[in-house]
Amino acid sequence: MNEFRTVALVGKYQSAEAAEALRRLAAFLQQREVTVLVDDETALLVGGIDGAKVSSFEQIGEHAELAVVVGGDGTMLSAARRLCAYPVPMLGINQGRLGFLTDVGRGEMLDRLGEILDGKYLRERRVLLEAEVLRDGRSVFNSVALNDVVISRGEVGRMIEFELVVDGEYIYSQRSDGMIVATPTGSTAYALSANGPLLHPRLAGMVLVPLCPHGLTYRPIALSHDSIVELTVVAPHDARIHYDGQTLFDAHGGDIVRVRRSFQSITLIHPGNYSYFAVLREKLNWSASPRLS
Amino acid sequence: MNEFRTVALVGKYQSAEAAEALRRLAAFLQQREVTVLVDDETALLVGGIDGAKVSSFEQIGEHAELAVVVGGDGTMLSAARRLCAYPVPMLGINQGRLGFLTDVGRGEMLDRLGEILDGKYLRERRVLLEAEVLRDGRSVFNSVALNDVVISRGEVGRMIEFELVVDGEYIYSQRSDGMIVATPTGSTAYALSANGPLLHPRLAGMVLVPLCPHGLTYRPIALSHDSIVELTVVAPHDARIHYDGQTLFDAHGGDIVRVRRSFQSITLIHPGNYSYFAVLREKLNWSASPRLS
Amino acid sequence: MNEFRTVALVGKYQSAEAAEALRRLAAFLQQREVTVLVDDETALLVGGIDGAKVSSFEQIGEHAELAVVVGGDGTMLSAARRLCAYPVPMLGINQGRLGFLTDVGRGEMLDRLGEILDGKYLRERRVLLEAEVLRDGRSVFNSVALNDVVISRGEVGRMIEFELVVDGEYIYSQRSDGMIVATPTGSTAYALSANGPLLHPRLAGMVLVPLCPHGLTYRPIALSHDSIVELTVVAPHDARIHYDGQTLFDAHGGDIVRVRRSFQSITLIHPGNYSYFAVLREKLNWSASPRLS
Amino acid sequence: MNEFRTVALVGKYQSAEAAEALRRLAAFLQQREVTVLVDDETALLVGGIDGAKVSSFEQIGEHAELAVVVGGDGTMLSAARRLCAYPVPMLGINQGRLGFLTDVGRGEMLDRLGEILDGKYLRERRVLLEAEVLRDGRSVFNSVALNDVVISRGEVGRMIEFELVVDGEYIYSQRSDGMIVATPTGSTAYALSANGPLLHPRLAGMVLVPLCPHGLTYRPIALSHDSIVELTVVAPHDARIHYDGQTLFDAHGGDIVRVRRSFQSITLIHPGNYSYFAVLREKLNWSASPRLS
Repeated sequence: MNEFRTVALVGKYQSAEAAEALRRLAAFLQQREVTVLVDDETALLVGGIDGAKVSSFEQIGEHAELAVVVGGDGTMLSAARRLCAYPVPMLGINQGRLGFLTDVGRGEMLDRLGEILDGKYLRERRVLLEAEVLRDGRSVFNSVALNDVVISRGEVGRMIEFELVVDGEYIYSQRSDGMIVATPTGSTAYALSANGPLLHPRLAGMVLVPLCPHGLTYRPIALSHDSIVELTVVAPHDARIHYDGQTLFDAHGGDIVRVRRSFQSITLIHPGNYSYFAVLREKLNWSASPRLS
Repeated sequence: MNEFRTVALVGKYQSAEAAEALRRLAAFLQQREVTVLVDDETALLVGGIDGAKVSSFEQIGEHAELAVVVGGDGTMLSAARRLCAYPVPMLGINQGRLGFLTDVGRGEMLDRLGEILDGKYLRERRVLLEAEVLRDGRSVFNSVALNDVVISRGEVGRMIEFELVVDGEYIYSQRSDGMIVATPTGSTAYALSANGPLLHPRLAGMVLVPLCPHGLTYRPIALSHDSIVELTVVAPHDARIHYDGQTLFDAHGGDIVRVRRSFQSITLIHPGNYSYFAVLREKLNWSASPRLS
Repeated sequence: MNEFRTVALVGKYQSAEAAEALRRLAAFLQQREVTVLVDDETALLVGGIDGAKVSSFEQIGEHAELAVVVGGDGTMLSAARRLCAYPVPMLGINQGRLGFLTDVGRGEMLDRLGEILDGKYLRERRVLLEAEVLRDGRSVFNSVALNDVVISRGEVGRMIEFELVVDGEYIYSQRSDGMIVATPTGSTAYALSANGPLLHPRLAGMVLVPLCPHGLTYRPIALSHDSIVELTVVAPHDARIHYDGQTLFDAHGGDIVRVRRSFQSITLIHPGNYSYFAVLREKLNWSASPRLS
Repeated sequence: MNEFRTVALVGKYQSAEAAEALRRLAAFLQQREVTVLVDDETALLVGGIDGAKVSSFEQIGEHAELAVVVGGDGTMLSAARRLCAYPVPMLGINQGRLGFLTDVGRGEMLDRLGEILDGKYLRERRVLLEAEVLRDGRSVFNSVALNDVVISRGEVGRMIEFELVVDGEYIYSQRSDGMIVATPTGSTAYALSANGPLLHPRLAGMVLVPLCPHGLTYRPIALSHDSIVELTVVAPHDARIHYDGQTLFDAHGGDIVRVRRSFQSITLIHPGNYSYFAVLREKLNWSASPRLS
């Protein structure tokens, strides 16, 4: 008896490279008598998968008991933002390079998936952020992000200026290249490049990481995950809001970007021997022997 | 009717400068018919305070309903480490330079204290860390810290080497100048100098900040406040363990330093208009107008 | 006998605020029997200055023996880029906030200018960078910068990718938000916000500062001032080239941005008591007493 | 005809591991009819090398035309500090892990050495620093360093305080863990761990890198190589002066540590295909493909 009886396959957006991996996964699952769904974009891209039922993300969300995502972390981000409204857990399979969210390698995928169907796996919950843009008191845009919400310069100009308010309290005004609001999941992504700290996934927090601030005393600030962050764009600069680097919104002077923890979350499925720090160690070249000298 | 009926006064260790402030506080409190205690070291230092009962920290802990600490953040750290076993809340009065823990100025101290006695104040809980040193399986030292526990080089040598384990999971081995484990309170102290992030006091977390690590990919790591951090000193290097920079222990190769949240905590009393970020803004020169250019 | 017999006045671009200061300077100079020129844009903006001859930057460059610039560091950058082809030295007068390039305050400007006319001043040479964009082997754009040349993302996309070659040697490929190439003068500007080092003006060098690089081991690199830096934009990303944040060029995939020291430089005139580090100390709040704790 | 007719062998201090490599080098050199010297400590350690003349560093300095150093970068630092008074160039051979100064691998050492004897090699000059400690106006210690001179806390206390003067100009007072003064060679060593920039070997400069300064606006400062840096220890803190992490001096309050470029330098010999950036790329994991995501 399988732990998951209906499994959806999701491939990398605009890439046919994953096709062969998807077919092998479909065949393996069908052999295990698992019902296989494939999302319609992936199906279109790879020209269909034998025996797999082409489904919308809504159908996957409602019927699948597991979503297997083949690609890189970007593919997982995209899938997570579409599936977070549903309870379906997700398993990420990378295409060669270990990812923070795609921790199963292509070479071991059938073995690991078999074990997972046998019930040997770990579940991990990851929170999402929700960011709403308010203009003249009305909501003009709203989306979610698993990694980060970034406010940065618009098409014109080299910097932005904004006011930061947390939980209704004024913090500061800042001129900078922008600000990242990241989840623990996102703390290993863009925020890390911007000199932000790592947040352990079990930490109930999020982090504000300024981008090249004018003034040398602005530092990353880790907040409780139930804090509400408001960034008000100061004219004349426009600003661009990025959700996981995948969705954009152009904000104007006076707009308020309100970021908080989403009430939605996703569940990651990991092989039984998964270690968050083992992934970090490999990605960041941490080791038992020091790197320099 | 006063909110606090017995108030203890604690002064700066080895400094007579605070004597006049202590006397004014004592007189003010007595006028408000508050019973005044003074800790025995402070009493010795300032030559006694009229009408104040000289008491040990144990007596203060058991009888005082409020401890008023006059000095800098270092004085508060020291008092907090002695009083954390008791439920007495603490109010910090600085001697000229605003502190993170001593947020009431000398000039306003009587007004603020009056309001606090009238019941106009905020309470804030701050966690402490506890760090135990294990040698050959036995505990050889144990103390608490409100800001940070730091493991750094001993008398000889320029660096140390240690293994880091969090919640039983091996993270990495590191050669470096040392490692800071800081509370949110300590995130504005030494950890900030070492490029650590700010942790909001409401964040249920702590942060590991490496000191000059060999290898460029070691970053601050924010952990859940219920994580257990173990640092094993790798021979031949000795290491020194610092608790708030005030208590020292010399550790040897093989010793394990186990850091976790203390079951003890302290309660800070702030004036009713207190703002954590207002203090940060002043200390770090954050402002409404950018600093550079 | 005055040290400088013909002095040009240059005001802040698109700001009438400096008008009164310009008039006072003109009157003072005429009283000292100095011939006064004013650049045509400034003249238009402030509605003319009595007795000052309206001149183009070319005429100023050829005839003035000193250019007095009233505004902020941005005004100086703009004037420097226009005057660097000529030998005329420049004096910067700020409008309230001390600048790195505008180190004379409005309140002291007549006293300092008087001393300078009397021969009491320091001369300091500052180098400029020149950055040429090569497309298919042909030069399609070329301009100079006193602070920095920045290559960053174009209108679309969140990052860029480029290859870095120094003195004909391949260094690395990088995906990042961009790269700053800064002079010592520019090391206190945008490069400092991006975590770059300070370069003393006497250092014969320039510095490469990456902006949020993917990969944690990319660091600022200080190079000899005679090095030639080539950044090749990797498609599909476009890139934008900024010269002192004032002039833009949109580069495409395959374009090579070649940055080197310009053969042109400017000469700054400072009051006799000028100290580079005194300016830094004030701007960066360095002091004799530590800032934290 | 060999480019170098007398070659000295120097091994890793207190390590017999290099013995076999030293013997193979000696045999190879003798086969090429090169006169072989070996330094007396190395000879003692490895029990003598057939046909190699045991010599002091002074004799090596006077008679050898090349010194071949087998070990890690630390071995090279030590040898460089002893040989810098002489014109003998140095070649570094690592024992498995590529070093910044020991860029020839053990596996390729005979091939590379052969080519070098044939005249196929690059010469590179590296400057040293000299740091003198002045007490009550008299010099009480003086030594040189190829990487860095570090002033840091003494046996007691957790921090130091010092005043910084460059070229006779007061810069700032600082409380911190210490200060590194590094050459371009040292910019890839301890200074890099402390967030310092890379200095290209051709840059005529050195860099000041503060260690965990109190105050968030202290940054690395790159200076011209002819600047004179003076650090005055402020009592009551003692300080320890480190030269390449190999020689120590205990300084007291009031002592002045005067650091400047040494009039001595060393010459490194590299194989003909040597590339400084290729070494950096390998050591720092820079690559054509980004590391994160």
